[in-house]
Amino acid sequence: MASHLFKTLKKSEKVIVKQWFNRHLEAIQFYKNEVEITDDISSLKEADVYIIAVSDDAISGLSSELPFTNRLVVHTSGSVGVHELDKKHRRGVFYPLQTFSKEAQVNFKNVPICIEVIEKMDFIVLKSLASALKSKSHKVNTNQRRALHLAAVYVNNFTNQLYRVAHEITESEGVDFNILKPLILETAKKMQVLSPYMAQTGPAKRNDKKTIKKHLKLLENEHHKTIYELLTFSIQKTHGMSKDTINKKKSIKK
Amino acid sequence: MASHLFKTLKKSEKVIVKQWFNRHLEAIQFYKNEVEITDDISSLKEADVYIIAVSDDAISGLSSELPFTNRLVVHTSGSVGVHELDKKHRRGVFYPLQTFSKEAQVNFKNVPICIEVIEKMDFIVLKSLASALKSKSHKVNTNQRRALHLAAVYVNNFTNQLYRVAHEITESEGVDFNILKPLILETAKKMQVLSPYMAQTGPAKRNDKKTIKKHLKLLENEHHKTIYELLTFSIQKTHGMSKDTINKKKSIKK
Repeated sequence: MASHLFKTLKKSEKVIVKQWFNRHLEAIQFYKNEVEITDDISSLKEADVYIIAVSDDAISGLSSELPFTNRLVVHTSGSVGVHELDKKHRRGVFYPLQTFSKEAQVNFKNVPICIEVIEKMDFIVLKSLASALKSKSHKVNTNQRRALHLAAVYVNNFTNQLYRVAHEITESEGVDFNILKPLILETAKKMQVLSPYMAQTGPAKRNDKKTIKKHLKLLENEHHKTIYELLTFSIQKTHGMSKDTINKKKSIKK
Repeated sequence: MASHLFKTLKKSEKVIVKQWFNRHLEAIQFYKNEVEITDDISSLKEADVYIIAVSDDAISGLSSELPFTNRLVVHTSGSVGVHELDKKHRRGVFYPLQTFSKEAQVNFKNVPICIEVIEKMDFIVLKSLASALKSKSHKVNTNQRRALHLAAVYVNNFTNQLYRVAHEITESEGVDFNILKPLILETAKKMQVLSPYMAQTGPAKRNDKKTIKKHLKLLENEHHKTIYELLTFSIQKTHGMSKDTINKKKSIKK
């Protein structure tokens, strides 16, 4: 996260990245010609905002170690409370809602930034920081940010796991997973214009018992079957037919 | 399906759509200036291929009613057997693996066609039909087509249901579901270049018990919780830590 933010902020004419602190200097050595790097926390310079981009567990401790007070300090986590930052600071959260991989370049234009602040005026600083990244920003409260972080697990991690199950299913018949890729993309694209409710199709939505039965018979992997049953039930629940097809009282075995 | 196919084939210079049959003429009345339409099955003309694009249950019956023998007849279903077509025909399947909505135009360039035939030489006809649509075609056997149809349910219907759950979660906190849309798209885009195994991130993959616990506490809807637990377990199973975090013996209540 830190390096993605750095690379994009560095390019912006709207902000100056004054310094980059890391406890392990060698981790940021690569950037030493582009920005002042340091592993000495006592040498931190004055700035409009300090971004703590570390793992969730390290946020609170690091914020306490910062050798100043009453400056704007934000973390970038979706699930850590704003109050876990040391109260000696003006506090906020600058949470980019996107999936990052170390390898790929991030285009922050496609990364909504969820901003949470305690003092209203700090929102303006963080909003302009987001605009320096060319990101859209959204003002959220703690509960909203947590809901987004949780919902992101469904649309990203859990969805990815469904891709994995599909991969296992196709592999078991020696068929190329690549054939599914256009469908994967189209399903996500559809979501840009339709609600998930309106976009739903398929045997569960149609209550096509014959196809559901065929699918369950085809599934040899018990775990795949459990996921099939639960999500079929879920679709039918959403579309008002929860008592059909799948016996909801049946306990699902993992 | 029939109208999507018609519109695209009509534009192609490689094929001629000779006739369009529908039991209910008014359903295809709209196209009467573009193609010969009929509701009289006995008036069907000779052609290289007959495409039966009807609901799964109607395929078999319609194929028997066709007043000729030994011509190439295909259906477009992912789950119906090729042998459910009347054996008086040369039989095949022409299964476009994509999600279709009545409203949206379909670009068949993004639609892989899974072709199944009984007699090898029929593959050539169907392959050139696919290329008239500008689609990629893939030769599959029955089991492979069924595996693809099943896997498609996971990456399309079930994924869409995860979007729905995310919608419910964001809505319950009054936060805009739109904020998740870039993440939804990026998750699918990542799949174009990475395997689902390599693309996985998040608390389940990291075995971040603290965040998982927070999420489960946050989830008020029991059904959302069940999905969370099952898919977290699934990710951990895939990534080799199935005994951690989630007690797999615990029966999941729907």
